[in-house]
Amino acid sequence: MSDFSRFAINQITTPQLDLAAAVEAYARQGVRGIGVWNQYLEGLDLGQAARMIRDAGLFVPCLCTSAWVNLADRSAYEAALEENRRRLDAAHAIGATTLVMVPGGLATGEKDLPGARRRVEDALHALLPHARAAGVMLGLEPLHPMYAADRSCLNTFRHCLELVEELGVGSGIVADVYHCWWDPDFPIGLRAAGRDKILTFHLCDWLVPTRDVYQDRGMVGDGVIDFAFYRRLLDEIGYDGPFEIELFSKLDWWQRDAGETIRISLERCAPFVAPRLPAATAS
Amino acid sequence: MSDFSRFAINQITTPQLDLAAAVEAYARQGVRGIGVWNQYLEGLDLGQAARMIRDAGLFVPCLCTSAWVNLADRSAYEAALEENRRRLDAAHAIGATTLVMVPGGLATGEKDLPGARRRVEDALHALLPHARAAGVMLGLEPLHPMYAADRSCLNTFRHCLELVEELGVGSGIVADVYHCWWDPDFPIGLRAAGRDKILTFHLCDWLVPTRDVYQDRGMVGDGVIDFAFYRRLLDEIGYDGPFEIELFSKLDWWQRDAGETIRISLERCAPFVAPRLPAATAS
Repeated sequence: MSDFSRFAINQITTPQLDLAAAVEAYARQGVRGIGVWNQYLEGLDLGQAARMIRDAGLFVPCLCTSAWVNLADRSAYEAALEENRRRLDAAHAIGATTLVMVPGGLATGEKDLPGARRRVEDALHALLPHARAAGVMLGLEPLHPMYAADRSCLNTFRHCLELVEELGVGSGIVADVYHCWWDPDFPIGLRAAGRDKILTFHLCDWLVPTRDVYQDRGMVGDGVIDFAFYRRLLDEIGYDGPFEIELFSKLDWWQRDAGETIRISLERCAPFVAPRLPAATAS
Repeated sequence: MSDFSRFAINQITTPQLDLAAAVEAYARQGVRGIGVWNQYLEGLDLGQAARMIRDAGLFVPCLCTSAWVNLADRSAYEAALEENRRRLDAAHAIGATTLVMVPGGLATGEKDLPGARRRVEDALHALLPHARAAGVMLGLEPLHPMYAADRSCLNTFRHCLELVEELGVGSGIVADVYHCWWDPDFPIGLRAAGRDKILTFHLCDWLVPTRDVYQDRGMVGDGVIDFAFYRRLLDEIGYDGPFEIELFSKLDWWQRDAGETIRISLERCAPFVAPRLPAATAS
């Protein structure tokens, strides 16, 4: 019998379910955590949402995501910071340990990527005091380079780790193997980060071919990523945080019955998410 | 009047033209070089192809591409090395200074990316003596990380530069801004490589949105890449090699009249490809 006590499903994996339905369906099948998305909290009382999650016994590795701060207009930028402070409070309210920072890529019409990165760095510094006060971590997630222009200009593990080292307490890394698997520095980066700076570890496979830049991410096992390698590495550095499956899959999983997606997620992730792996596997 | 003496069009930009037609059309509109693709040499006498190019006054910055060497089967791997030796000879025959190395990603069924990279490194070492003898450079091209699984496991400028430093004489970098623009280390890498290790510089823009992973690359100016920044940087390091536009664009440019694509390529690239930029621009 598998132990899923470290295993969460990120809610975007089953976008057809509202929060109540996702909480119920995940808990019923034995999932122990839920990664929550902001849009599913809209119109809900946060206290009620928190109670619903707590009563089901689910942990919340993260709230997704920050509002984009990469806006050239100063007042729009300041408004985005305020929105992010509200999201940090919402994360605290529902018991999420981390707000996943997806800050946007280039501003409209902008071609200055280093400038965009500096603006994001400024925004992270500006948000840090509120994050510390709320007891919620700023979770810097390196996003795949193919999203540099239009989703996030944080694209390498090394860049994110440098920022986390600069920001200090109140920040950490959200590591998603889908975004980083190609990077020769990813294993090195995970070791450099160590157990304390990795807030949560996302599982998702890279499909060949990838038919859509944004929404054709694969179920664990259907692609080319060596999950066993990463699990061994994480054990070696003593990582004991969450494992969280997150699928953007308009072309496949989002069209299926959510119960089936949850069941197959559990089956496929079981070898990689046990609290401790057998010594033979971990060697 | 623009000076296009450093400017080439990579032939894949106008795939509807055979070699003779491309040579004629490029030369007629004032393009001075042609990046040749292997498939357009099939069935041609290489001496005749060379004469055709030379008579039109075109230089040949590169032959595209190497045959994939990332094959788990040993005899298929050895056959691929032999094919690459033939392509090095073909490059020499048509006056191409460089064979662009696109070695493949993972072998079929393989999940060991570091292992795939080691195999490619071995293959490059195995090909180096033949490249030196043929007087053709092994041009290592960092390909965008989204191609790591199925086209090339050489995905960062830094990795390629480390390999070039290890290989030494007979190797260099093919820098394509489309593949590297997202990388915080790209400008650093260009400076570290210096003028002598950069064999040719490819121009292609990143479109937002990108509708296809492989064949939706943009005309210079239609996307988000800061070409002026890269031209200034290349001038600073004294780079005086080719500039070469290369568009994979099934969704747009490949559907247009080739003459129109050539004309617009010249218009769009003119500000970035002059032998020397005005001092004000280069400052």
